[in-house]
Amino acid sequence: MLPETPALLLLRQAVRRWLDAHPYDDVAIALSGGADSLALTAAAVAETDRVRAIVVDHQLQHGSGEVARTAATRARELGCATAEVVAVTVGTVGGIEAAARTARYDALETARGSAPVLLGHTLDDQAETVLLGLARGSGGRSIWGMRAFDPPWGRPLLDVRRATTRQACVDLGLEPYEDPHNSEPDFTRVRLRTEVLPLLEDVLGGAVAPALARTAEQLREDGAVLDAAADAILARVRVDGDLIVDALVGEPAALRRRVIRVWLLDGGAKALTDKHLRAIDDLMVAWRGQGGVAVGGGSAGARLVCTREHGRLTLGFDNR
Amino acid sequence: MLPETPALLLLRQAVRRWLDAHPYDDVAIALSGGADSLALTAAAVAETDRVRAIVVDHQLQHGSGEVARTAATRARELGCATAEVVAVTVGTVGGIEAAARTARYDALETARGSAPVLLGHTLDDQAETVLLGLARGSGGRSIWGMRAFDPPWGRPLLDVRRATTRQACVDLGLEPYEDPHNSEPDFTRVRLRTEVLPLLEDVLGGAVAPALARTAEQLREDGAVLDAAADAILARVRVDGDLIVDALVGEPAALRRRVIRVWLLDGGAKALTDKHLRAIDDLMVAWRGQGGVAVGGGSAGARLVCTREHGRLTLGFDNR
Repeated sequence: MLPETPALLLLRQAVRRWLDAHPYDDVAIALSGGADSLALTAAAVAETDRVRAIVVDHQLQHGSGEVARTAATRARELGCATAEVVAVTVGTVGGIEAAARTARYDALETARGSAPVLLGHTLDDQAETVLLGLARGSGGRSIWGMRAFDPPWGRPLLDVRRATTRQACVDLGLEPYEDPHNSEPDFTRVRLRTEVLPLLEDVLGGAVAPALARTAEQLREDGAVLDAAADAILARVRVDGDLIVDALVGEPAALRRRVIRVWLLDGGAKALTDKHLRAIDDLMVAWRGQGGVAVGGGSAGARLVCTREHGRLTLGFDNR
Repeated sequence: MLPETPALLLLRQAVRRWLDAHPYDDVAIALSGGADSLALTAAAVAETDRVRAIVVDHQLQHGSGEVARTAATRARELGCATAEVVAVTVGTVGGIEAAARTARYDALETARGSAPVLLGHTLDDQAETVLLGLARGSGGRSIWGMRAFDPPWGRPLLDVRRATTRQACVDLGLEPYEDPHNSEPDFTRVRLRTEVLPLLEDVLGGAVAPALARTAEQLREDGAVLDAAADAILARVRVDGDLIVDALVGEPAALRRRVIRVWLLDGGAKALTDKHLRAIDDLMVAWRGQGGVAVGGGSAGARLVCTREHGRLTLGFDNR
């Protein structure tokens, strides 16, 4: 029986809310051994007896296997039904950090069975994600942050401060694993956490991280409404795979661009930017006979291009 | 004839776009004598010969009259049709900066006649405004930033970097007035400008100010669609001034809260927070017989309270 400290109770409440909203027979937890996932594990086992811990051993550092086994042992002691270590081989595509991430999520996906995988992301992680998105500047969507449930990934702690997971570990006598080489290989996040957010809180004189998280949540809710409206319009203006200009041009810009975006994605476009969407929108609202707009998602031999022909927007390959 | 430098051409282009979008017989410019409004004046007179400069003398510092007269002279030399100095008396309500702002806008409003008043706010000002709003954390609306036209206030330079107005002044041999006592009395803005934005750009490795401005623009467009949808719903669910719960409860949260917001504002509510809106929304979606929700906007003797009665939300005064 874990001591009922205020920090643990906050965490348990968050996990309870998540479990109530997403009823599953059992849940997996992605346990790194760090404070967030360790505290999450402690809170989860206090709320349900069907918790399976999955510890991914990235095998990137000497002794990583031992660290993983220690975390699994701790999970069993806390009361997890099972705790397994999954060793992965990390590739190099996109850099070591991206490759480690891919390997980790692949391993979790395989090991989870039919259970959702709970992740230890906190409100502070959410705030960092929102700030990262802000720099991309591609509208509300870029600052939606992380979702509480993006199946199979569950994030019960998005409303909980990182300080709370740290405190819970102290309260429970748990010793989180702090990577001695590099506690967080994503240096941008480290700097957001250690430099930008503290400065913002100092300058703006308030709790910036919760404000960022609240804004992200509301933008997600707004975005869901707008996306649904765009889907309904798309169903009406798409004929034989083309977009009928006259049917779409009278809609507000915010909806036109969303319709174009979904239509392009359906057609195989990749890495869309706001610039693409605006250029294609201009084929409708600022038509002066301009040529097609190339978007990402073609191949080496053929570009994917959106053109306007006979009052329709069409998407096709342009051999080059 | 002004020399056609790249900086001035950028500014002229921005002013031209604004004038094309908002055709008026003449325009006023709020000229402080600082680089932004001075460069805006130079660009505007190059685009139209019907520019009237209005210089507000706040009379807060010794010699402010001389500074204002110098700015007005410069405006006439640049080619403004008229350039007048309006002296104001700044009160103390809400602090000197807020009082100066109120006095300035009142004076501009009076002096403008029927002309719109162009303000020198740049993309950098916009980015600062968005960051300020982020800290409030009350959703998309708080980070809409400033509008290009919020009648009678026009902001043609919201897409132009502050560096461009500075450069234009250098190019044109204009000497902007730099307040020797305090170049910007709003210290939060100064710190955002001199500390936060440079750090963000360093950490995120990109042009953060334009990204913030783009995001703000898109959120305004999104917000306009959502607000229009909410207005349409409100027209349907408001009966005898009350909101019919059954008619509203099935709408998405993002629209319900917008409907509640407009309804409350129509009913005289003030200083609404997201917390108010959620508590009132709970009267519909999490109804368990709870009491009314007090909102700002009542008087000393009577609070404005929203209650649920017989399947309706009503807004009324609760004597205390």
